[in-house]
Amino acid sequence: MPLYDQFLEGSVVALSKIISHIENQGDGYQEVLSRLYRKSGNIYRIGMTGPPGAGKSSLVNRLAALFAEQSRKIAIICIDPSSPFTGGAVLGDRLRMQDIPRDKGVFIRSMGSRGSTGGLASATSNVTVALDAFGFDTVFIETVGVGQMELDIIDACDTVVVTLVPESGDAIQALKAGLMEIADVFAINKADRQGADRMVYDVQSALEIRTERSEWPIPIVATQAVNNMNIEELAAGIEGHRKYLETSGSLAKKRGLQLRKKIEGIILRSIRRDLDTTVLSGSVLDDIVANIMQGEEDPYTAGRKLYERFKIGS
Amino acid sequence: MPLYDQFLEGSVVALSKIISHIENQGDGYQEVLSRLYRKSGNIYRIGMTGPPGAGKSSLVNRLAALFAEQSRKIAIICIDPSSPFTGGAVLGDRLRMQDIPRDKGVFIRSMGSRGSTGGLASATSNVTVALDAFGFDTVFIETVGVGQMELDIIDACDTVVVTLVPESGDAIQALKAGLMEIADVFAINKADRQGADRMVYDVQSALEIRTERSEWPIPIVATQAVNNMNIEELAAGIEGHRKYLETSGSLAKKRGLQLRKKIEGIILRSIRRDLDTTVLSGSVLDDIVANIMQGEEDPYTAGRKLYERFKIGS
Repeated sequence: MPLYDQFLEGSVVALSKIISHIENQGDGYQEVLSRLYRKSGNIYRIGMTGPPGAGKSSLVNRLAALFAEQSRKIAIICIDPSSPFTGGAVLGDRLRMQDIPRDKGVFIRSMGSRGSTGGLASATSNVTVALDAFGFDTVFIETVGVGQMELDIIDACDTVVVTLVPESGDAIQALKAGLMEIADVFAINKADRQGADRMVYDVQSALEIRTERSEWPIPIVATQAVNNMNIEELAAGIEGHRKYLETSGSLAKKRGLQLRKKIEGIILRSIRRDLDTTVLSGSVLDDIVANIMQGEEDPYTAGRKLYERFKIGS
Repeated sequence: MPLYDQFLEGSVVALSKIISHIENQGDGYQEVLSRLYRKSGNIYRIGMTGPPGAGKSSLVNRLAALFAEQSRKIAIICIDPSSPFTGGAVLGDRLRMQDIPRDKGVFIRSMGSRGSTGGLASATSNVTVALDAFGFDTVFIETVGVGQMELDIIDACDTVVVTLVPESGDAIQALKAGLMEIADVFAINKADRQGADRMVYDVQSALEIRTERSEWPIPIVATQAVNNMNIEELAAGIEGHRKYLETSGSLAKKRGLQLRKKIEGIILRSIRRDLDTTVLSGSVLDDIVANIMQGEEDPYTAGRKLYERFKIGS
């Protein structure tokens, strides 16, 4: 496998090709993943999320540049949202390429969510395995918003940074809606704008009234990505969380849960594929649908019957 | 089953209880659905989507009031988005209750997407069956944004209205991103604002350069929900699309596809439940995860092996 040899020798072109192969689920991609997995185990995954326009890309840029200066090998995965209403990601992605010094070897990969129904989280996780095997020690995974798909992606990260801006509106509202549970570090970006102090205060207050607390005191860092302000403080927050996870044993626990989910996903997708090529293709289902439309059956009963015929272990 | 008798007698309280039972997947809910399905078949499902703040709720209000005046029995399902960044839905929902005359018998139900991972589309579809059996002839299904979950919900509708406002930014960009494929009717709301004419023109232009066209000429209606302007035109667009679907045979085809998806979903969720209570619970998976974390296996190989043991028909 000459491509894999090139990969092992550090060819970024080979890495890109292997990532595409995995993304497209090309022939034998699972064997490739098994092989890559055995070379992996060092990468640290930092999830970056928040509303559109909060400046996540700029923050990732700054953090990546800072970490790269410390001789860390950095990769960035940008998830292009499927929602047409969150725009800007594609352009931001192109623009950012200019911000990071080329000689730092930062690797950037975009992943689209269109067409990969339900599988984007597993695709992202698989790409991370390839980056890990290639030798990157840190990956930023950037995603807009917190829909179910995004939550699945974020679940696969070690440290999650939630970026808000003073303009985001009611911080408490946003927090109530679910950010509280996923944030390990808050960045209040564009902190030169009016309302930034208030935003920090609101987030702080919201954190204090949480009922479920971990022992990790979530830092809230007021940043200005464009002016490169407090990026080191934000990095310190991330590193602090990492140390907390490592020393408390939470990292091993977290990774165990992530592995369970990964295995679950592999099994479910395999079964799904079997269903597609058996029960759900061909004329069996056509006949059933025709029966239902003629009022001779209902889909719930039909679904149960089909399931009984094809269920696990039957 | 006294509750079901009350339901048949037209008790809205009984309807609400049955909907909750279905939503919570209470004991025997599938049998309830089978029973309800046999009494269904008349409801028409109108999906309303678009960016936050476009005025979808107000438009639904106006349309519902108009249809109710025509002695149609109207229900509204509001999907509360899981994303904390789209806010406003909850408040909008409360406010709207005041707008629709109480004596018109419009039934409004909110459904949250939190906690119903992946199942919101099927839950929405199931609730629609209950509304159908109860005697409603039209249901509006309102959802913010077009993430995967929203697309699944919209897929289960007959006619989809996409609402944009002049402020939405680049219409062409939004259209490119996926609205083109799902819209049967466009509403350009808040049409008194600057840029509305331009917006209509942009959408029109974008529609003209489509490669895949159906025979249905997608209407673009400039509306002002707050001023009750052009609501009848919008309703005519929806009714026109319905007639097109009915006379062209597309409605039957569409419903056939929806039924297939429904059955697929029922089978997959049943299998998922089996997996949860067998392979994925207990110590089998714990041992495997421990092995992987000690570097003795990889999750891809482990997943394949488990799948081989438990796959359909094995």
